[in-house]
Amino acid sequence: MRVVITGGAGFLGRRLARAIVERGHLRDATGAQREVSEVVLADVAAAEGLDDPRVRPMAGDVADPAFVAAAIGGDTDSVFHLAAVVSGEAEANFDLGWRVNVDATRHLLERCRALARPPKVVFTSSVAVFGGALPDVVPDNQALTPQSSYGAQKAVGELLVHDYTRKGFLDGRSLRLPTVSVRPGKPNKAASSFASGILREPLAGVEATCPVPAETRMWLLSPRLVIENLLLGHETPAATLTQGRSVNVPGISVTVGGMVDALRRVAGDAAAARVRFAPDPAIERIVRTWPRDFDPAYGRSLGMRADADFDAIVRQYVDDELRR
Amino acid sequence: MRVVITGGAGFLGRRLARAIVERGHLRDATGAQREVSEVVLADVAAAEGLDDPRVRPMAGDVADPAFVAAAIGGDTDSVFHLAAVVSGEAEANFDLGWRVNVDATRHLLERCRALARPPKVVFTSSVAVFGGALPDVVPDNQALTPQSSYGAQKAVGELLVHDYTRKGFLDGRSLRLPTVSVRPGKPNKAASSFASGILREPLAGVEATCPVPAETRMWLLSPRLVIENLLLGHETPAATLTQGRSVNVPGISVTVGGMVDALRRVAGDAAAARVRFAPDPAIERIVRTWPRDFDPAYGRSLGMRADADFDAIVRQYVDDELRR
Repeated sequence: MRVVITGGAGFLGRRLARAIVERGHLRDATGAQREVSEVVLADVAAAEGLDDPRVRPMAGDVADPAFVAAAIGGDTDSVFHLAAVVSGEAEANFDLGWRVNVDATRHLLERCRALARPPKVVFTSSVAVFGGALPDVVPDNQALTPQSSYGAQKAVGELLVHDYTRKGFLDGRSLRLPTVSVRPGKPNKAASSFASGILREPLAGVEATCPVPAETRMWLLSPRLVIENLLLGHETPAATLTQGRSVNVPGISVTVGGMVDALRRVAGDAAAARVRFAPDPAIERIVRTWPRDFDPAYGRSLGMRADADFDAIVRQYVDDELRR
Repeated sequence: MRVVITGGAGFLGRRLARAIVERGHLRDATGAQREVSEVVLADVAAAEGLDDPRVRPMAGDVADPAFVAAAIGGDTDSVFHLAAVVSGEAEANFDLGWRVNVDATRHLLERCRALARPPKVVFTSSVAVFGGALPDVVPDNQALTPQSSYGAQKAVGELLVHDYTRKGFLDGRSLRLPTVSVRPGKPNKAASSFASGILREPLAGVEATCPVPAETRMWLLSPRLVIENLLLGHETPAATLTQGRSVNVPGISVTVGGMVDALRRVAGDAAAARVRFAPDPAIERIVRTWPRDFDPAYGRSLGMRADADFDAIVRQYVDDELRR
């Protein structure tokens, strides 16, 4: 079993690779459980910090078809396509966003289609495909009305995955991930970067700025459950995907104020006091268009699940990233 | 006022050009009514049969950015983007469909965006963006779930038009046209071609084959009202488009049997007897995924309208195409 992860040097890519090699086996396109022999981490920079002989970093541009062809060899069984230009950057740089989030996705699907034995493809989509006037709780059949370029690009990616799958070119699955919190490391250009920053920075003794009001409600999932649900989305037999190839991944609906309260409960008043609210209209405008809550019945029926509450998410970060 | 119509040599393109030069004026991007000085008909073949000095045919490939740049000069005020690979052909030739229906649309939008004074863009989308398990009457907020490559490609086109408009690159409008009936001329590779053929051929004394059962319900609009609604979609001020840039254009919901009944009432038993039912699974599979009826409240609120009934549609064809 040979697996390729695009965006593999990123936080989620590396965690996914680690989970795959620890697990040791995955279900291939025929439904058979097979031993994992190699996990290729394709990304702009070579992935670091994964000390396993089965993990092979490959540096290159996923928007370059030659690199994608090299990474996705004819013996590839599964592709997790995580590489993307994040929301804030896609909004600031329109052309880069369409090139990487759409053109590269299409090249990747073309590459898979061209192989004699096309791999299974798991595409990470986003709740940003929804936007505008939304119900308080978004149902599975909600229309895609993105209000950001990132959301529009992910919606196009889903349409591609759906059509390639419908035509029998490959077996694709699009998983709409909630905002991932708490991400370790540095802030990034995602409009949702603060949803990790307001936990991570205070826990490190550093002040954090929250660019949206405390009452802003978000749809969140921890890194551990993102990985668990990505693997579940991969393992689910095609016959089980009776409601289409796009799945709203479960999450929890929490206000930013509620996130800070959880931080206070887990790490104390001093940590919570390090969060400063300073509205940023550009970020607020993007975040305000995102859905705040879902009824992810389809995803749940596939066995996907969310964290118990945000306290559990904060504790998970402390366990996974600070206690190591 | 300089107007470019892609697919301009086609039946709708020529009718639209005729309507524009007869009308003589259109509202430009600033909202001002301006005299029409030129209508460029860009298409693979030079348009014929339009004897007006303001109409200029241009032959070329809309999937070729150089041709699009030549057709859409810096002085272009409005573009009607009608050119497309039709549904049956897009299903049979996957790569051609994505190249023409998506890549060419994106190149066209890029060309418009690059101009100092970007033109208004009217994009013809289709009810094929809907599909699968649909309510009997499709509401305006129905999710886009295309079940054909053509529908997926039109959905991507709408996402592009929406995002270019949202970013302020141009003023775009996507009009989801019902199946157009009765089209004159020869059958084409659209899966819906029979929806004209079963009227047109019998009226010319020729037998016609209907590839779907008589109880198949379709969403239809006559050529005259397609043109009227396209012009209305163009003229509507941007401020009026409060529910987004994609509009379900009104139509009427009629079964194929009802269409033949109308033919009988307008042209007699002999004409109706020329329709032979012979199921074609490939056509049936595509048509069955299309919506059968709509509540096009948004389109109606913009002033768009449908034919009174299918008898009126048959009579219109007799008046417009057979009595000339």
